[in-house]
Amino acid sequence: MWELSERDLPALSIGASLLGTGGGGNPYLGSLRVRELLRAGHRVRVMEPEALSDDDLLAVAGGMGSPVVSFEKIVQGEEEANAVRALEVLAARSVTAIAPFEMGGGNSMAALCVGAQLDVPVVNGDGMGRAFPELQMITYLIYGGRPFPSAIADEKGNHLVFQDGVDAQWLERIARAVTIEMGGHSGLATSLMDGAHCKASIIPGTLGLAYDIGRTVLAARTDKSDPVDAILDATGGRRVLRGKVVDVERTMTKGFARGRIALEGSGHDEGRQVQVDFQNENLVVWEEGAPVATVPDLVTLVTTDRGEPITTEVVRYGYRADVLVLPCPAKLRTERALQVVGPRAFGFDLDYQPAFS
Amino acid sequence: MWELSERDLPALSIGASLLGTGGGGNPYLGSLRVRELLRAGHRVRVMEPEALSDDDLLAVAGGMGSPVVSFEKIVQGEEEANAVRALEVLAARSVTAIAPFEMGGGNSMAALCVGAQLDVPVVNGDGMGRAFPELQMITYLIYGGRPFPSAIADEKGNHLVFQDGVDAQWLERIARAVTIEMGGHSGLATSLMDGAHCKASIIPGTLGLAYDIGRTVLAARTDKSDPVDAILDATGGRRVLRGKVVDVERTMTKGFARGRIALEGSGHDEGRQVQVDFQNENLVVWEEGAPVATVPDLVTLVTTDRGEPITTEVVRYGYRADVLVLPCPAKLRTERALQVVGPRAFGFDLDYQPAFS
Repeated sequence: MWELSERDLPALSIGASLLGTGGGGNPYLGSLRVRELLRAGHRVRVMEPEALSDDDLLAVAGGMGSPVVSFEKIVQGEEEANAVRALEVLAARSVTAIAPFEMGGGNSMAALCVGAQLDVPVVNGDGMGRAFPELQMITYLIYGGRPFPSAIADEKGNHLVFQDGVDAQWLERIARAVTIEMGGHSGLATSLMDGAHCKASIIPGTLGLAYDIGRTVLAARTDKSDPVDAILDATGGRRVLRGKVVDVERTMTKGFARGRIALEGSGHDEGRQVQVDFQNENLVVWEEGAPVATVPDLVTLVTTDRGEPITTEVVRYGYRADVLVLPCPAKLRTERALQVVGPRAFGFDLDYQPAFS
Repeated sequence: MWELSERDLPALSIGASLLGTGGGGNPYLGSLRVRELLRAGHRVRVMEPEALSDDDLLAVAGGMGSPVVSFEKIVQGEEEANAVRALEVLAARSVTAIAPFEMGGGNSMAALCVGAQLDVPVVNGDGMGRAFPELQMITYLIYGGRPFPSAIADEKGNHLVFQDGVDAQWLERIARAVTIEMGGHSGLATSLMDGAHCKASIIPGTLGLAYDIGRTVLAARTDKSDPVDAILDATGGRRVLRGKVVDVERTMTKGFARGRIALEGSGHDEGRQVQVDFQNENLVVWEEGAPVATVPDLVTLVTTDRGEPITTEVVRYGYRADVLVLPCPAKLRTERALQVVGPRAFGFDLDYQPAFS
């Protein structure tokens, strides 16, 4: 059990945002939420998956919606906790721990907030090992969890429970429509499960990993060494390009931020051009019409000078950025997982091409 | 207690559709649903509101969506019953009777279907005394009922419970978004209430009224007398115009069928023109730019020869039609009700102008 303090937040925030691959919510706003709860005397406890009992009751909690919206529509703060409470009413039982939905500057923190608000620990891990745009894309569901009941809550006091339904895709469709009606962002609780299922399906250790990556970046900044090299060392990733953002196309469709980021290389990469397609999260990197990195491998843009992750809601012309690709966790690379999170699941006519052997 | 038989259906269907003011669902499809349940051995029982015990538990059940959609997207049949069952799970109690949502050829029958499927009686009355397009427009809610919990179900197996929320308008907004995602039509159960509240807030006797109106029309057809005169006698209504439908504008926006029907008078009414604005239901009749009938008074088009109600999903160029206005129930004419169902609630810059003194 690890008890989080305010001084852990900057490192956790950087690392979680890096793993968020452009999405997963804004890290600055996410950090503020946890900081305020800590200052109000709440405790944020992180437990290892192995410490779960088989009969623990867990809910997965996080924010749902486009990062473009959640950057401007500031959360009230209890959305996710209220969604979990709605599930508890139906289950007639309280949860004993929270399992993070995804990494990302917002949703890693959202899970910690819910743990603090309900005074239960948060499991060190998550359901994506990164961030994905759609909610059926979590390993808790991919590996046999039940999508129902799930609950969704807004800042105004509306909360709904999906008692039962066809499958996780229908949960996503309907929850997305509700989220849009709620203003483009909502708190979600899903995948009620016991400790045994959580241990079996979670991608373990990602909160700790995020913290370690962030510490490395902060240390490099202090040492005046290259923070991007530090990220690559800590993650086993590689740099696709160092350059400049020269164009961003971004549209909001059906509750998602979709678009393409164009970069031109500089220095060593002078003359090269790459494009990054995103749907909330970065998905595929293209160079000369060919894919050079594909989802579920992690594609993240960071600022060249400080190694600061750049999320898709803030990226714009002029950023000096490195495009990085990091290997995805093994649980995302199985045939079963690739059906749900591979390039075809996002509409690309493309198979997953591992960037790392 | 009145037990409905198959031979009651034609009259009930005509009368309910007339009260449906152009909406409330298609009467032909509605009748078929009840007929099939009766033939399968189910019982359809109608009870008077006065026979309710104060501690009876009632749910309001009916279909939600645009009549244009429900005319083509044939119901699976258990949508409304499944919505009621979802509320029963949350309440940990079974309902003892069903209160109809609204009149109309579809939703009068939908309530009877749910009663048959759950083997409980249906109360003789409804929450509108007609049909309205939005779900906060029911007297059970206008007169103090709780909009939460409510449930919504589709034909595919999805069902959601709105455990709690801001108000009935927010229930309408979110339920409408869910209904659109479900394909434009869903089964709704709302306004869980005890017998005392039902007795106090229901518009009583409307199933019986619908049946009586329908019998009058059928008798006039047999006698070769004017069926429209028979309707006016039975309801205390008046004819605005006898003529022909010369134009229909109809668009589907945000889950509603909205538009305008233009008619030209013939015979006695030669040279006159009226327009009828609708949102699922007929709302305001205009002549020479001035309103001559306004919601919540009942505006219904019927065929001139047979007195057959014409719903907004089937109305088209060429219908020989009478435009009728019938007085609305007293419970819709209070200041409290007019705030929810008066012309301004539908976006008209217009006060309610009673067509009857």
